[in-house]
Amino acid sequence: MRSNVRITTPLVRSALQSIQRRSFSASVGRQAQWGFIGLGQMGYNMARNLQAKLPSSDTIRVFDINATSIQKFANETKALGSGAAVKIAASAREAAEDAETTITVLPQPSHVKNVFGQILKPPLSQEVVSNPDRLFIDCSTIDPSSSREVANAVHTTRQGRFVDAPMSGGIVGATAGTLTFMLGSSDSLISRVEPILMMMGKRVIHCGDQGAGLSGKLANNYLLAINNIATAEAMNLGIKWGLDPKVLASLINISTGKCWPSEINNPVKGVVEGSPASRDYSGGFGISLMKKDLGLAIQAASEAGARLELGDRAKQVYDAAEQQEDCKGRDFSVVYRYIGGAE
Amino acid sequence: MRSNVRITTPLVRSALQSIQRRSFSASVGRQAQWGFIGLGQMGYNMARNLQAKLPSSDTIRVFDINATSIQKFANETKALGSGAAVKIAASAREAAEDAETTITVLPQPSHVKNVFGQILKPPLSQEVVSNPDRLFIDCSTIDPSSSREVANAVHTTRQGRFVDAPMSGGIVGATAGTLTFMLGSSDSLISRVEPILMMMGKRVIHCGDQGAGLSGKLANNYLLAINNIATAEAMNLGIKWGLDPKVLASLINISTGKCWPSEINNPVKGVVEGSPASRDYSGGFGISLMKKDLGLAIQAASEAGARLELGDRAKQVYDAAEQQEDCKGRDFSVVYRYIGGAE
Repeated sequence: MRSNVRITTPLVRSALQSIQRRSFSASVGRQAQWGFIGLGQMGYNMARNLQAKLPSSDTIRVFDINATSIQKFANETKALGSGAAVKIAASAREAAEDAETTITVLPQPSHVKNVFGQILKPPLSQEVVSNPDRLFIDCSTIDPSSSREVANAVHTTRQGRFVDAPMSGGIVGATAGTLTFMLGSSDSLISRVEPILMMMGKRVIHCGDQGAGLSGKLANNYLLAINNIATAEAMNLGIKWGLDPKVLASLINISTGKCWPSEINNPVKGVVEGSPASRDYSGGFGISLMKKDLGLAIQAASEAGARLELGDRAKQVYDAAEQQEDCKGRDFSVVYRYIGGAE
Repeated sequence: MRSNVRITTPLVRSALQSIQRRSFSASVGRQAQWGFIGLGQMGYNMARNLQAKLPSSDTIRVFDINATSIQKFANETKALGSGAAVKIAASAREAAEDAETTITVLPQPSHVKNVFGQILKPPLSQEVVSNPDRLFIDCSTIDPSSSREVANAVHTTRQGRFVDAPMSGGIVGATAGTLTFMLGSSDSLISRVEPILMMMGKRVIHCGDQGAGLSGKLANNYLLAINNIATAEAMNLGIKWGLDPKVLASLINISTGKCWPSEINNPVKGVVEGSPASRDYSGGFGISLMKKDLGLAIQAASEAGARLELGDRAKQVYDAAEQQEDCKGRDFSVVYRYIGGAE
């Protein structure tokens, strides 16, 4: 296990990229083939950045169950007139079939399992070892167990290598190409994976072996989910007691209560300029996504026998807040509104 | 209400101090008299710093219900041979009787009410307005309502001015004179109060009118109480999932989970050098103090009609952890041990 976090900076990115691309070409004797499966809100923008940064000699095959998304992607990249050639795949399997690298960005564990069920050829056939160097980068946020299950299926049938690389940074980061990826991967694959992720983000954190990226993300987001509720409560408390919101936030942010929700994403309007709270909680990190990550963490905690004290109560808060009409679909800091905070 | 936090730095301290001391002497025609009530673990060390920094022409009268503490204080300051003259008061009232400034550092709301019941002369008597300029600085952490009640008693009987100035920084900060005070005071008193607090600390945050210091402290510590449990849970989760503790902490501390308990007071041994966790949770911020502050915040929330979602559950955790033999009396990050974290 690694003793410190390894982070790739943009400085080494282009060097690694060109080395990487050459090795593809050399090993397979042709220009690089890419697969991209899942053109949802995150995947679409990630694929846009990847496509734009690849050379025109490369080909990227895209697939999504939503045909409109694929067509839109094809049209937009065609209009751009640069970057890798885009081809529409008829299935997830077709997108990945000839690709050295396939990236998946899917919403739920079931989608990831289903897609890899299609991609992987039946085990033990003659074809099994036809392409053992295929790289699968799964950027979906799912539970580590499901991820390991899929990784095992890929590895035991020798149909490629599978790494998990969930991200943080939201749609804004996906669009701007400034995502942070939490990578779970064997050391030997890092130099191959990192330059690819750096075409869609600005930071790669190697958390450990396969599955560790998801574990890191879920542990972090578990903490975030609770800190966010606690911040909403603490701000509401102080304001109800008569404190000025900005004074209270300033006090907390130079004290032991300081955390990301108090400092960057303060849930009270006007405290942090440009925060979701200052625009009626629009944009930001949707409450349903926070609820999803919290649910995955609770599930994985249960599987690992890790005792949680606050998790279930926090989940109830997000469940109930999401049901409330004036909170639904908004940034997760809307919990402040849910508990009755003055606006 | 003030729109931003006002902080006094050491740079302005000595200037303010000398102005302050001169104004005392000028107004009362003699050297300054001080009262200090409450020589517990915090008060004792605060009084030591105050006494040492006052001129030898000043007198400080100390009182505590524990006679041993008073005697020890008298002996130690006598041995020092410098600073203000120390006199042992026979009662809280005697300590405050002739003092321009009296500082109280008491454990519970009942102690504060009781002490001020003794100090204040019966209202409406001839003597009532004999010393309307007396300053009372209460550094106790109590609920804002009790504090306002005492302040009202002082103000309506015109026997002085009362401000709340609870502190953070613990025994280490009290000993080193590096406390942070959260001040609840009318604007007109700030210039009188700040230089006094700066003799015992390094920072004064003016939070608003009387009571606001306590409100700020309790709101902050409510947030801290919950962030601490959530951090213990998140660290435990990641470690149970196979992550290296240092990698996990590094990941969290450059991500949205970052908070004081993850970064400064990480509950896992070896992650932060010199942390309580790295010395079997000794020292630091005692779990019983965290429990006390959380209880006060919950009580004050209830009085103000502020809805809490996680407070009661968090309180149960600290209550139960404090009952556990291997957690009792230790730093509040010992919650990690309480939930079964690997050590």
